[in-house]
Amino acid sequence: MWFKNAVTRFPQAWFKVCNVKSVCCRNYSVISSVLEKPNIGDDTEVKGWVRNLRVMKGVVFADVSDGSCAQRLQVVIPKDLKTDALTYGSSVHVSGILSKTPKGQVELVANKVKVLGECVVLDGYPFNPRTVHPPEYMRQFLHLRSRTNYISAILRVRNSVTRHIHDYFAAHNYIHINTPILTSNDCEGAGEVFKVQPDSSATVKAMMQEGKDTDSAYFGSKTFLSVSGQLHLEAVCRGMGNVYTLGPTFRAENSRSRLHLSEFYMLEAEAAFCDSLDQLQELIEGLLKHVLVQTRNSNEADLFIIDKANASPPVWIDKKFITLSYDEARNILEKKHLDVTEEGINKEQELALVEYCNGTPVFVVRWPKNLKSFYMKECADDNSKVEALDLLTPITGEVVGGSLREDDYEKLKQKLPSEALNWYLELRKFGNIPTGGFGLGLERLLQVVCSVNNIKDTLPFPRWPHNCDM
Amino acid sequence: MWFKNAVTRFPQAWFKVCNVKSVCCRNYSVISSVLEKPNIGDDTEVKGWVRNLRVMKGVVFADVSDGSCAQRLQVVIPKDLKTDALTYGSSVHVSGILSKTPKGQVELVANKVKVLGECVVLDGYPFNPRTVHPPEYMRQFLHLRSRTNYISAILRVRNSVTRHIHDYFAAHNYIHINTPILTSNDCEGAGEVFKVQPDSSATVKAMMQEGKDTDSAYFGSKTFLSVSGQLHLEAVCRGMGNVYTLGPTFRAENSRSRLHLSEFYMLEAEAAFCDSLDQLQELIEGLLKHVLVQTRNSNEADLFIIDKANASPPVWIDKKFITLSYDEARNILEKKHLDVTEEGINKEQELALVEYCNGTPVFVVRWPKNLKSFYMKECADDNSKVEALDLLTPITGEVVGGSLREDDYEKLKQKLPSEALNWYLELRKFGNIPTGGFGLGLERLLQVVCSVNNIKDTLPFPRWPHNCDM
Repeated sequence: MWFKNAVTRFPQAWFKVCNVKSVCCRNYSVISSVLEKPNIGDDTEVKGWVRNLRVMKGVVFADVSDGSCAQRLQVVIPKDLKTDALTYGSSVHVSGILSKTPKGQVELVANKVKVLGECVVLDGYPFNPRTVHPPEYMRQFLHLRSRTNYISAILRVRNSVTRHIHDYFAAHNYIHINTPILTSNDCEGAGEVFKVQPDSSATVKAMMQEGKDTDSAYFGSKTFLSVSGQLHLEAVCRGMGNVYTLGPTFRAENSRSRLHLSEFYMLEAEAAFCDSLDQLQELIEGLLKHVLVQTRNSNEADLFIIDKANASPPVWIDKKFITLSYDEARNILEKKHLDVTEEGINKEQELALVEYCNGTPVFVVRWPKNLKSFYMKECADDNSKVEALDLLTPITGEVVGGSLREDDYEKLKQKLPSEALNWYLELRKFGNIPTGGFGLGLERLLQVVCSVNNIKDTLPFPRWPHNCDM
Repeated sequence: MWFKNAVTRFPQAWFKVCNVKSVCCRNYSVISSVLEKPNIGDDTEVKGWVRNLRVMKGVVFADVSDGSCAQRLQVVIPKDLKTDALTYGSSVHVSGILSKTPKGQVELVANKVKVLGECVVLDGYPFNPRTVHPPEYMRQFLHLRSRTNYISAILRVRNSVTRHIHDYFAAHNYIHINTPILTSNDCEGAGEVFKVQPDSSATVKAMMQEGKDTDSAYFGSKTFLSVSGQLHLEAVCRGMGNVYTLGPTFRAENSRSRLHLSEFYMLEAEAAFCDSLDQLQELIEGLLKHVLVQTRNSNEADLFIIDKANASPPVWIDKKFITLSYDEARNILEKKHLDVTEEGINKEQELALVEYCNGTPVFVVRWPKNLKSFYMKECADDNSKVEALDLLTPITGEVVGGSLREDDYEKLKQKLPSEALNWYLELRKFGNIPTGGFGLGLERLLQVVCSVNNIKDTLPFPRWPHNCDM
C-alpha cells in the first residue's frame, strides 16, 4: 500500500520512551494495588481517609480508604501513635510494615501516622460512622456525598460501565464521535428543549446581526442543548461507517420521577449497512450482557456495597431476551386489564410486560407510526407500523429505544418536519446506505446493573427541576 | 475481607455467556480486519464507498473504503459487472475472492457488485475525486465532510487519542467522573458564560417560584453551561482520591481565531495528596508523550493523510520538557523585544518561548497571583506568586493550565469570590487533603498531535461565533 512507505520513516526507539505503567506523581501506594498484590513484610506508605475506628486495649484499628477500590486497608496503630486528631473522617498519611493477620487478612502495622486534615463531626459533618444514611438524606450534601460508601461505590461502577461500553464498541469496530451539545435543530420530537444564549448582554448587543433577534445574536440562529446526537451520528455514519457517541443530553421537562433527569448521559449508536431490526437487537442484547458480566467481574465488592441483592446476578444473565410485537404486547396488557391508550405503553405497563416475561428484558417491536419519530422506516408489509424497538428491563422499564432509519430520499422528504433539516435529507442523496441505531440512557442502565431505585444516585451531581446546586 | 463471602455466591458459568469478540450485527467483513489478517482465496464480502475508480482495458479498479481505517481495499471489477451507477462516491456491496497482486497488495476480485446508493456529483455533491479540498471549503459542508479523507482521518485519530487518554489515567489509578454541564456557579473566572433556560415559555411560567425571576424558574437558580469541571472534581477528589473528567465545556466569547471554539472538550484531572508542581508536571509530560507515541502506533496511516510532515515524529518526543519560571520567561521575551504587559503572556509570546526552546514543550511556572484564579495556592517563599503552571507547545501555545489548590480553610475563605461557593470552601473543613490538577484542551492537543492548523477541523461539528449549523 502507498502509505506503507511511511513505516520506515518512523524510528522504533521512541515507541519505548513512554511507559504508561510507570508510577508517576506519587510517593505512596494506592490501596487497590496494595491489596491486589500485597508485598508482606515491605515498608509501605498509604494516604487516605479513616472510615472506621475501633479502639482496643493497647492498639487502635483504623479502616483506611483512598477511593481506589471498595475495600479498606486495616491499619494497626499502637496507642502511643493515636492522637486526638485521628478520628473518623480524618485524612491520614500512614507508614508501616505490611503484614497478615492469623486469618490471612492483609493489614498495615503503622510506625508513623500523620493526620493531614481533621474531621470534627460535631462541627457539621453530615455523615456518621457505622450508619447507613438514606439516599434522600445524602442527596442534600452533593459536595460531600462521594465520601459515603454507597455513592463512591456507584461512581466506581459508573467509571467501569463506561469503560466496558467503550471496549464493546471498539471490539465491534465502532468509532466514537463527539456529537455537538449545542445545536440549531429543535424539531427532533424527542422532548422539550433548553435554549442557550450568552449571559452578558454586552456580548449579545455586540454580536447582533441585522434582521435577527437576541436569541440568535451569538450563533446567528436560535440555539438549543441537544436532546439527541442521532441525526449528527447519521451524517458521520454515511462517511465513516459504524459510529457511536456517549455524552450529555438534556430535557427541559418538569418531571421529578425516580427515572428522569434534566441532564443525563446517553449512549447512541448508528450501525452502517443495517437493514433489519434483528441485527440491532443482537447488538443491544450483546451490549447489556457484556456490561453486566464485565461489571460483576470488575466491581464485585462495589455492587455488594450498593445492594446485597447484587450478590446474585439477575435472572436474565444467561437467557435470550424476549421479542414481542407492539400488538402482542397490547394484547397481553389487555388481558391484565391494563388497556393501552393511543398515547402508547406507559411506565406501569412497561414494568407489567417485564413481569409477564418473568423479569427477562423484552424488546417491543413494530410500533404504530403515529407514536414514533418521522425518521423511522415503515414496515414493508404494513405501512401503519414502523421498524422501531423499545427494550424494557426490570427496575426502569424502557432503557433503550431504536429503529431502522428511513433511507428512501423521496419518502423522507415527505415526512421531513422542517426545512432546517434539509441537511439531514441530503445525507440520502449521495452514496446512501441503510442504517439503524439506538439510544440507551446510561443512568437507567446503571440503575439496572446496580439495582439502584432512584436515578439521581447514579451520577455525582444530578440536575432536576428546581435542583441545580453547585 | 468481609466482602470475599460474595465471591462464592457468583456462579462462574455466566462469565462466559458473553463474548465481546463475536461479530454481531454484520453479515460482511470490515475492511480494517480484511487488510490486517487477509485470508487469501476466501469468499469475502465488503460494503463501503467508492473513493476512486480507474477504468482499464477489460477491468475496473475501485478503491473502496468503509471508514474503519485509513486504508482502502482495491476491488477488481470485470467490465461486464460495471454499471453506470458505479461511480465515485457511490455505496457498494461487493462479493468476491480475496487475492494478492504480484506486488503483494491485497485486493478483492469481484464476482458480484451491487450499488446501494448512487452519487451523481453534478447533482450537487461538493467533493471531487483526486482533489485536495482546502479545509475552509470542507467546513461549508459539515454534514458531508466526514466523507473526505482529511476529516475522516482526523476523526479516527480523535477516537484513538480519547482512548489513549482513558488508558493512561486508568493505568495511573484515576477514576473517570462526569462533572455536570449545567451549573449554578458563574464565578470561576474562566471566561464568559452561556445561560440556559427552557425554550417553552409555558414551562417557565408553570415552574416560576415566588421571589425568583424567569432565569431561575426551571432550576430555582440562574443556570449556566460549565466553563470547567474543576471545582466539582475537587469535591469528588476529597471522597475518592485521584479523579479526572473528559467532557464538553463552553465559552461565550466573541473569538474567531484558529485556536478557539464556543464548545470544546476539556480533560481535567485532580491529583489527590499532591503537594508539588513537579508531581503534576510529571503526570502531564507522561500523558502527552503517551498519547503521541500510542497514536503514532495506532493511527500511522491517518496521521500521514492529515499531513505528510507527520511521517517524522516531533523533535520533542524523546526530550525532557523544559521548565521556566514566569520571571525567567519574561526576561527571555524582553531580550527578544517582546515585552510582557500586566495582562500576562500573549499568544505570540507563548509561541516565541517554544521557539526559544527549539520546539520542545515548556512549562511556565510560579505565576503572579493577580494573573491567576482565586483557588491557586500561594508559593511558600513568595506570596506574590502562585503555584501555577501553563504548558506551551508548538502550533497552539498554551495547551494545559494547572495549579496546586489552596488547601488552607482560612486563606481560601479570604479569597472566596462569592458566597455561592461556600460548598467549595467546606470541602476543606472535613478530612482535607492537598490536591493539584490541570485542564487540557482536547482539540488543541489534537492540533499538536496531528499538525492541524485550525481547531475547527479537529471535531466533527465545530461551533463558533455566528456558526452553529445543524
